[in-house]
Amino acid sequence: MTDFTADDHRHMAQALRLAERGAWTTRPNPMVGCVLVADGAVVGEGFHVQKRGPHAEVVALQAAGARARGATAYVTLEPCAHTGSTGPCADALINAGVSRVVAAMRDPFPQVDGAGFDRLRAAGIVVDSGLMETQARTLNRGFLSRVERRRPWLRVKLACSLDGRTAMANGDSKWISGDASRRDVMRWRARAGALLTGSGTVLADDPQLTVRLDTDAPFAVPLRVVLDAGLATIARGNVRDGAAPTLYVHAHDTKVPHGFDAPRVSVPRDAAGQLDLYVVLAALADGGINEVQVEAGATLSGAFLRAGLVDELLLYVAPVLLGERGRPLFDGLGIDAMAQRLHLQTVDVRQTGHDLRLLMRPEAAA
Amino acid sequence: MTDFTADDHRHMAQALRLAERGAWTTRPNPMVGCVLVADGAVVGEGFHVQKRGPHAEVVALQAAGARARGATAYVTLEPCAHTGSTGPCADALINAGVSRVVAAMRDPFPQVDGAGFDRLRAAGIVVDSGLMETQARTLNRGFLSRVERRRPWLRVKLACSLDGRTAMANGDSKWISGDASRRDVMRWRARAGALLTGSGTVLADDPQLTVRLDTDAPFAVPLRVVLDAGLATIARGNVRDGAAPTLYVHAHDTKVPHGFDAPRVSVPRDAAGQLDLYVVLAALADGGINEVQVEAGATLSGAFLRAGLVDELLLYVAPVLLGERGRPLFDGLGIDAMAQRLHLQTVDVRQTGHDLRLLMRPEAAA
Repeated sequence: MTDFTADDHRHMAQALRLAERGAWTTRPNPMVGCVLVADGAVVGEGFHVQKRGPHAEVVALQAAGARARGATAYVTLEPCAHTGSTGPCADALINAGVSRVVAAMRDPFPQVDGAGFDRLRAAGIVVDSGLMETQARTLNRGFLSRVERRRPWLRVKLACSLDGRTAMANGDSKWISGDASRRDVMRWRARAGALLTGSGTVLADDPQLTVRLDTDAPFAVPLRVVLDAGLATIARGNVRDGAAPTLYVHAHDTKVPHGFDAPRVSVPRDAAGQLDLYVVLAALADGGINEVQVEAGATLSGAFLRAGLVDELLLYVAPVLLGERGRPLFDGLGIDAMAQRLHLQTVDVRQTGHDLRLLMRPEAAA
Repeated sequence: MTDFTADDHRHMAQALRLAERGAWTTRPNPMVGCVLVADGAVVGEGFHVQKRGPHAEVVALQAAGARARGATAYVTLEPCAHTGSTGPCADALINAGVSRVVAAMRDPFPQVDGAGFDRLRAAGIVVDSGLMETQARTLNRGFLSRVERRRPWLRVKLACSLDGRTAMANGDSKWISGDASRRDVMRWRARAGALLTGSGTVLADDPQLTVRLDTDAPFAVPLRVVLDAGLATIARGNVRDGAAPTLYVHAHDTKVPHGFDAPRVSVPRDAAGQLDLYVVLAALADGGINEVQVEAGATLSGAFLRAGLVDELLLYVAPVLLGERGRPLFDGLGIDAMAQRLHLQTVDVRQTGHDLRLLMRPEAAA
């Protein structure tokens, strides 16, 4: 284990900040930042903006020019060794005469996975990896989930009252959370590769599931995904408005209506007769989706939770009470004893307007 | 309206901090703090510790001695003009030669209510009132509620899961919140004049309702109050352990069992056949209770809320999910439409251990 210095940490922290500037645009690629330091001074910086655009290392090397010779490169992910949309970054670093590469983590992508480090070392470059790896893994939790688990990182977004209700008994849920929360949701949508809902929500709330930001910042348009086992909602809904691509997921045994030509994928049903959520997520991962944001009702959200597929809960709690007749936060958990309760970790708590925004992670089942 | 200076604010803030040191001991008296300032220097400080003990002004004057002559007295409440357990503070300030009195607020207590200010002014002392009045009213919200509304300030304490459940369907609620939250509850109990529960909670949870602090700090022992319309639980429960006085509240029409000699009070039933909560609170106010902390289940907590009698909600939210079968936070609210939802204001948010502690105030009904 290398002993990293305070300066090492400082430069890597900057590289991580740079990387995150690509959060809304890089997918399906990972976010990557690079800082080049020569004689203690930053001589070049860069981050990966979007697929088919230059990689972070190349941007930083171009900025540094001749000053890259003998410099240390801080990169948030192992430089690539394969020729994808761009040439291998490892070769670019070697050719520029960089003397040391400090990486936050190895890239688990099969075509890299240590080959970048190997190529750098073979060229005589000192390579140290593992600096701020936790932060780097958190940054790219979507990309890593897809590559390492073959399923996207799954975030469930819900808005509820102080007493944990997401809607009235009649289904009305407009609006529990306030303007600031709804604007905040848009920023989380912008970093998701897919926004997923169920046929019940399409019928009840008819969401648009598009990204409507209060800035001009660019973003890659997220795929809209509708879980609709029987393709019962395909004739209706704002998700058909053409503002973003929409993918329908239906059951293998569903007869596809004649003339239905929207993108669709079929999956098997699980033992309970519902769409097999594991297969749904594998299909999305295979389609290059790093992060899925679920915006659905208590039933579908509860099904993902019960299946152990929820990685992150983004919860907006409004300072209101809806009472005992309101709909639950998650339905179908089937918990009967205190020992069966589900534990979560608090990642972040802040206020969005008058609401409280909680970011929680379910703890892995014992 | 007097223009108060930054120094005025600084000294009053200190007087308020001093006053609050009596939070666990002064009741039924209000908390009061006093700071004496001469030539810009603090020459005496004091706060009211307990009933029959010296008032804040007297403590501060004793500390100041001759330096009180010509000084300004900052007091969080109008000095008293009547001879209660101690002599009138207004006279003490006059006799000490104080030249100016700055008060945070007038004392609405019928035997004061401006008479203190009048007596000071009659003696030629400059009196300015209203500095940091909001903070002073918040500090003594219990005392003021009793005197101005003839009912105690009512705080409902509840612990719930992230999905707003206070217990399993079978009633099990041990323990939703963590150690740090349960220790924190003890500090709120210490400032309450009464800890109120219902017969259902006595039967289901059998709480002790005593103050068990992790410090040696003194506190006035809160009265335990059990709402038990039919006196059905009088033969059982930790509330009979003698560790603190316990008051039973029953219905007028309940036949008191022979030999039952515990303190009790009877109240009429309301239109729904339940104990009339307004009368319950008036009786407690008449008994000198400033603050009531309700520690009951969803039914009784919901009844207080529905009646518009909840002033403060102290909610510990544990990072767990209990699921849709769990008991609600408040029962019986009977809300059917979004427009009927109850709004609250967020007063304070912090973490107690792994839990989130929310202090909320229901907004007055429109």
